[in-house]
Amino acid sequence: MSAHHPPLAELYPHRHLLGIEGLQPNEIVALLDQAEAAVEISRQVEKKKAVLRGRTQINLFFEASTRTQSSFEIAGKRLGADVMNMSVASSSVKKGETLIDTAATLNAMHPDIIVVRHHAAGAVHLLAQKVGCSVVNAGDGAHEHPTQALLDALTIRRHKGSIAGLTVAICGDILHSRVARSNIILLNALGARVRIVAPSTLLPNGIAQMGVEVFQDMRKGLAGADIVMMLRLQRERMQGAFIPSVREYFRYYGLDRDKLAEAAEGALVMHPGPMNRGVEIDPEIADGPQSLIREQVEMGVAVRMAVLEALAAHLPNK
Amino acid sequence: MSAHHPPLAELYPHRHLLGIEGLQPNEIVALLDQAEAAVEISRQVEKKKAVLRGRTQINLFFEASTRTQSSFEIAGKRLGADVMNMSVASSSVKKGETLIDTAATLNAMHPDIIVVRHHAAGAVHLLAQKVGCSVVNAGDGAHEHPTQALLDALTIRRHKGSIAGLTVAICGDILHSRVARSNIILLNALGARVRIVAPSTLLPNGIAQMGVEVFQDMRKGLAGADIVMMLRLQRERMQGAFIPSVREYFRYYGLDRDKLAEAAEGALVMHPGPMNRGVEIDPEIADGPQSLIREQVEMGVAVRMAVLEALAAHLPNK
Amino acid sequence: MSAHHPPLAELYPHRHLLGIEGLQPNEIVALLDQAEAAVEISRQVEKKKAVLRGRTQINLFFEASTRTQSSFEIAGKRLGADVMNMSVASSSVKKGETLIDTAATLNAMHPDIIVVRHHAAGAVHLLAQKVGCSVVNAGDGAHEHPTQALLDALTIRRHKGSIAGLTVAICGDILHSRVARSNIILLNALGARVRIVAPSTLLPNGIAQMGVEVFQDMRKGLAGADIVMMLRLQRERMQGAFIPSVREYFRYYGLDRDKLAEAAEGALVMHPGPMNRGVEIDPEIADGPQSLIREQVEMGVAVRMAVLEALAAHLPNK
Repeated sequence: MSAHHPPLAELYPHRHLLGIEGLQPNEIVALLDQAEAAVEISRQVEKKKAVLRGRTQINLFFEASTRTQSSFEIAGKRLGADVMNMSVASSSVKKGETLIDTAATLNAMHPDIIVVRHHAAGAVHLLAQKVGCSVVNAGDGAHEHPTQALLDALTIRRHKGSIAGLTVAICGDILHSRVARSNIILLNALGARVRIVAPSTLLPNGIAQMGVEVFQDMRKGLAGADIVMMLRLQRERMQGAFIPSVREYFRYYGLDRDKLAEAAEGALVMHPGPMNRGVEIDPEIADGPQSLIREQVEMGVAVRMAVLEALAAHLPNK
Repeated sequence: MSAHHPPLAELYPHRHLLGIEGLQPNEIVALLDQAEAAVEISRQVEKKKAVLRGRTQINLFFEASTRTQSSFEIAGKRLGADVMNMSVASSSVKKGETLIDTAATLNAMHPDIIVVRHHAAGAVHLLAQKVGCSVVNAGDGAHEHPTQALLDALTIRRHKGSIAGLTVAICGDILHSRVARSNIILLNALGARVRIVAPSTLLPNGIAQMGVEVFQDMRKGLAGADIVMMLRLQRERMQGAFIPSVREYFRYYGLDRDKLAEAAEGALVMHPGPMNRGVEIDPEIADGPQSLIREQVEMGVAVRMAVLEALAAHLPNK
Repeated sequence: MSAHHPPLAELYPHRHLLGIEGLQPNEIVALLDQAEAAVEISRQVEKKKAVLRGRTQINLFFEASTRTQSSFEIAGKRLGADVMNMSVASSSVKKGETLIDTAATLNAMHPDIIVVRHHAAGAVHLLAQKVGCSVVNAGDGAHEHPTQALLDALTIRRHKGSIAGLTVAICGDILHSRVARSNIILLNALGARVRIVAPSTLLPNGIAQMGVEVFQDMRKGLAGADIVMMLRLQRERMQGAFIPSVREYFRYYGLDRDKLAEAAEGALVMHPGPMNRGVEIDPEIADGPQSLIREQVEMGVAVRMAVLEALAAHLPNK
């Protein structure tokens, strides 16, 4: 970093990353800029930077996740941290220990950073109040998933140059999606126009107050959009009669060539994964030339490296 | 370490740590002294000492455990070891392999240290006879859990200066507790007076021969005690009619403000975790000023670092 | 490596190790020679070589396995790689993601090597076509398990000097055994005479076309053999009426002192593990002086280190 560039700890003056809500636009941009440098590290043969050497990172996952946990694990290891994974299946939660006791126990082992995924909205904030280290929210219920929004923004910015002025359509199961929520906040903060496309049964209350346009007709919602973000239909979170038929869902809300044609020319397609192919997205589109889905995964590692490094800059005596 | 200080391998002249039983008082003290130095490592920003670099530590857990496995994993990594976790769920035990074959298989991979937790008393001793590396008992059935007793002693010593002459009341589910057993042996070895407080149904046979005073009335057992060690009520190890009602149990054997008032002024409260809040301990006491419960966890990492370093000192060609 | 010795990348000119089939004899020998050097690394106190420092190795296991996954994990860590384990239980496969999407997702995180075990024959080849990194087959269905064949060959070569001209009897559950298949191909390539000993119900179709002699009578099959390779009876892959009785199976196909006496004097006994003691092998033989079973495990780590190092030699900019 050049001498006239402010240090990361000034650019991102927070100890935690609990959500996009509350971040200033320039703080978001600082994390994206830092992530650009991290992209290059992972493309080298020796993918290693010693900035977190001797630091302890704990990945505390109360919900299983391939890509998010792996992405944080790889990010931490590439920065030289000692990374420890703790999944709920092997944890004291089975023995009836509370979230707070688990947090306090881990905290007493002097970790530097705890990365937490939890099924309850707000659980990560609660945990952050009980520990002395940095906390990263890796998804809490239907609340926030800030690193997903950051990686989406980084991916968009690398293709479109900037976020401001773009029209972004977020489509599908908004109701169960922390991804949608974090993205709406971030995209609004950076000056995009955000549209929400979903059937009324998959819209959360109060969505209209989040500064978005709501569409139930996908063709209208996609008309002229620069970015089409598809969401996974989270059938595992739905109950009985409210689970839509896959065939019907794909017909009205699945992204296929026909519906994508309504978007702007060269519109880019995104999906946070894992995809339900043939449910919310046609495989032809997922694997097609407009898809950024693989690149999102790559940017995920870079964004998480940037976040870990930014938080580490706030650790004592650094 | 100063030049006139004997090396760790002389102070702790054993290849394994299978239990507190059989250790000499000065060997216990040597491990506690070594642990004091390890406390400081974990409080630094760069929590790293290279003493186990290039060594392989295997955590072989036949029973799940958040805090013990994590504590050993963090301890090993902070000393620079390559740490590999093996839990029973993903092991060959499912395919019908015996404990001994599992041990022999791991041994052939040239680990330096195997940390073992097993549900059967004696399993860890058996395993130690079949391998060429060092073995640490991380809990075997209701038999021993030596690093828990060491971390409890370290915690007490840091607050009281020494163990000798203290009155320590160990309370609750003694029957299922390897923690109680290891603590009784260690505390007696270092000159404490040990009291056991439990209902008759939770007392193991032969407890009176272990050099303790037994109380069924908790108020009498706590009278004048310097240290109150609560144990987790292990209902998962009990059967049907013998599982006490939580409400009754708390009334007679739960540590609350009222019962704690019987202990010496400034008596310290301990619990090996995970706690059943409202069962064996009132949350007000668990989180109160006399509680050392969080500090116990911190001392756990330090004690395990000391043990790993002591055993490594016996490895060939070191 | 001395100046007149060709570099490993020339000796093993492949990016992947998907099977023994298709390898040239000199390529197999190159891996075995490299493994000899790796044996010594694991026997040192500091078992560490920095050749994979900064590289990312992912162990992607769709089937659980103690020894294979541990062996690859230890091998990678001893070479300095960052190793990440992913087991199916905590993966997106539960959320309905396809193998190919999982592969593409991991690939986007820029791993250098993915080690894969999968229950379907051919799955690893398919995956290798979809990623930009090196892939090692750690067992795919009943198809191949190349590192097992390599470690068996290394073990034999260290005792017999060479493979050529030896008579090797592979006995037992050939039908479900990728180990048998990879061994037949490798042993034939290096000039051994391979015999297959099994009941007709445990023989795959087309086995006679693989260049082996088939015996249903174990005594005849073992007559004069230099090496007796026993296989695990994989009852978990069999159905109802076709599961042989353990008592009958041991009588006809279990290796005991009596049947082993038919083999050549000093014949060596092998088993890939985990063993069913008393089913396919008498414990007396498994633990006896002719058994190489523990040494096979040691050679497993060495062979995997050799394979990882050989593949790393093909990574860009190395």
